[in-house]
Amino acid sequence: MTSDPQKIRIALDAMGGDNAPECVVSGADIVRETHRHIDLVFFGDKSRIEPLLKRSRHLGNATIIHTDDAVSPDDTASQAVRRGKQTSMWLAIASVADGDADAVVSAGNTGALMAMSKLQFRTMPGVTRPAIAAFFPTMDETMCMLDLGANLECDAENLVQFAVLGQAFFRSLTGGAAPRVGLLNVGEEEQKGHEYIREAGRRLSDVELGVNYQGFVEGSDLVTGNIDVVVTDGFTGNVSLKTAEGISALFSTLLRRNLDRSLISRIGYLFARNAIKAMRRHIDPRHYNGAVFLGLNHIAVKSHGGTDKIGFANAVSVAAELVDHGFIPDVSDAISRANTVLEKMKEDV
Amino acid sequence: MTSDPQKIRIALDAMGGDNAPECVVSGADIVRETHRHIDLVFFGDKSRIEPLLKRSRHLGNATIIHTDDAVSPDDTASQAVRRGKQTSMWLAIASVADGDADAVVSAGNTGALMAMSKLQFRTMPGVTRPAIAAFFPTMDETMCMLDLGANLECDAENLVQFAVLGQAFFRSLTGGAAPRVGLLNVGEEEQKGHEYIREAGRRLSDVELGVNYQGFVEGSDLVTGNIDVVVTDGFTGNVSLKTAEGISALFSTLLRRNLDRSLISRIGYLFARNAIKAMRRHIDPRHYNGAVFLGLNHIAVKSHGGTDKIGFANAVSVAAELVDHGFIPDVSDAISRANTVLEKMKEDV
Repeated sequence: MTSDPQKIRIALDAMGGDNAPECVVSGADIVRETHRHIDLVFFGDKSRIEPLLKRSRHLGNATIIHTDDAVSPDDTASQAVRRGKQTSMWLAIASVADGDADAVVSAGNTGALMAMSKLQFRTMPGVTRPAIAAFFPTMDETMCMLDLGANLECDAENLVQFAVLGQAFFRSLTGGAAPRVGLLNVGEEEQKGHEYIREAGRRLSDVELGVNYQGFVEGSDLVTGNIDVVVTDGFTGNVSLKTAEGISALFSTLLRRNLDRSLISRIGYLFARNAIKAMRRHIDPRHYNGAVFLGLNHIAVKSHGGTDKIGFANAVSVAAELVDHGFIPDVSDAISRANTVLEKMKEDV
Repeated sequence: MTSDPQKIRIALDAMGGDNAPECVVSGADIVRETHRHIDLVFFGDKSRIEPLLKRSRHLGNATIIHTDDAVSPDDTASQAVRRGKQTSMWLAIASVADGDADAVVSAGNTGALMAMSKLQFRTMPGVTRPAIAAFFPTMDETMCMLDLGANLECDAENLVQFAVLGQAFFRSLTGGAAPRVGLLNVGEEEQKGHEYIREAGRRLSDVELGVNYQGFVEGSDLVTGNIDVVVTDGFTGNVSLKTAEGISALFSTLLRRNLDRSLISRIGYLFARNAIKAMRRHIDPRHYNGAVFLGLNHIAVKSHGGTDKIGFANAVSVAAELVDHGFIPDVSDAISRANTVLEKMKEDV
């Protein structure tokens, strides 16, 4: 007999994303169907949210915190922070900072969400910079990559901390014991790449650090399933992620276009449809939706702005799983242990 | 009536690549079948090359320049340069530098090929650093990207020169009049990305420069067909290229695996086979094989080390087309015109 999971509360920025608030409410409804221990709190325009909740199947009693104001997708991060203290995004984050909720999820402006989360949640002691991490499909399982765009310029210390954060994140969501960590580089040989990457590699090789470091990996290794956590700077991570999105779109379009070109291939598609659907399901970005800001004192999850209810539900599940698994105390322990070792390394030099 | 193209000679490093010299000879044989104006000169172990030429269909009279020595895939660039003056790679490059051939093609060690080519060909006047460029498939046509790994750290001046080089390269191989050039970045807004990328963007926006500059592009734009020349530093370019390779492999594997899972999907494949083959052909890396070193005084083409004869033949064709189209005088003009404008920009500041 397993005990019921402890009740948790997730704050939702109901006005963030291309299809808000409809997508936020219907995504939350999907989550609530199978996860009755999650209470959802909606921040945003009550006149638009309330009718949606009434029509929902499982959210009739959910709380709405009304505000007229919302962050615009075009705001810069600093504009949003300066002018946005009454926005649905700010208030949702504030509810977590104040202890009224356990995690926040938003499909709104990424830069604003990061800036507001940093300001209200503060960076975890010992972490120089928070990073954005997410999961992606590989040949067989999944891997996670960070940073995906929070820090365009990084040094060796940042990368080592990302490795520790990413390892804790992977463990928390998959239960895997010792995730294999790699540094993204332009070759596997020790002398390859930028000096700060080689320096990060040297530090990560110290077994005392407790990172299961596998060395340098290349862009082509991301999907092989041989690595669980891929660490890189935010510029490279963002380009790699978006290249992957582009190539996926290229494949899907070419496959559809070619299958549609003749009667015989359309017949073939009828027979192969389930197989092609299974492939699409394996790489469906909605099942990987939910990028997490690592290195803050609370959990903030960024949903893709253009996702649908299935994708938004996944982002909410990511937040809930991190809360359920005690991710924040876990990662905080990992960072403080790692920093002790890193300090000792510096003294030994 | 079109006149026969002028005779040209291409020097081949017969010992470079995983499947040398077999793949080099059979690739050259394919080229020679349709391009009788191309003479091929083989550098390497005569005892191994000669029997292959004898068995070839169109290379019976080809010249062999014998040497016992070859660059190893494990050599660093500086080891190869120091010890490698009798290698097939060095001698093939030397024959072009000496005016005995018009271009060199090698499937060997990339770092060694770049170092030896730089040393013997010299950088073109006005070019700060040569770059590696190649073509890739998009939804409808192709695009070219540079740098793919020659320069891990770049500044604004490098990126502007890459744009000029890439534009001339694209024009030379496609005949397109004013290729659309973009800078790879993490967002399309002007304030995004590293400062040196924004500075390169400002310089490229000057119409005097003669670059059809379209602004920043993201990884997801690479395949849309809206951009012809994508400019980036060698680290990012290499990661993006290899990510694309990885995702392509992921798709192919998942498609094959899922189609193979049931009898009904295998039947579907029989009908859809031609459509799936057409898609594979569209993105077949062999048809894009042949990375070109831009910014040197002569033409050097790097074939993928693991390609087959079809891929190697494509690399030789790339070299031949560049010679046929007078690429070197063309790009040299473009660079000197661009530098005049850039000098004027500096004075105006």
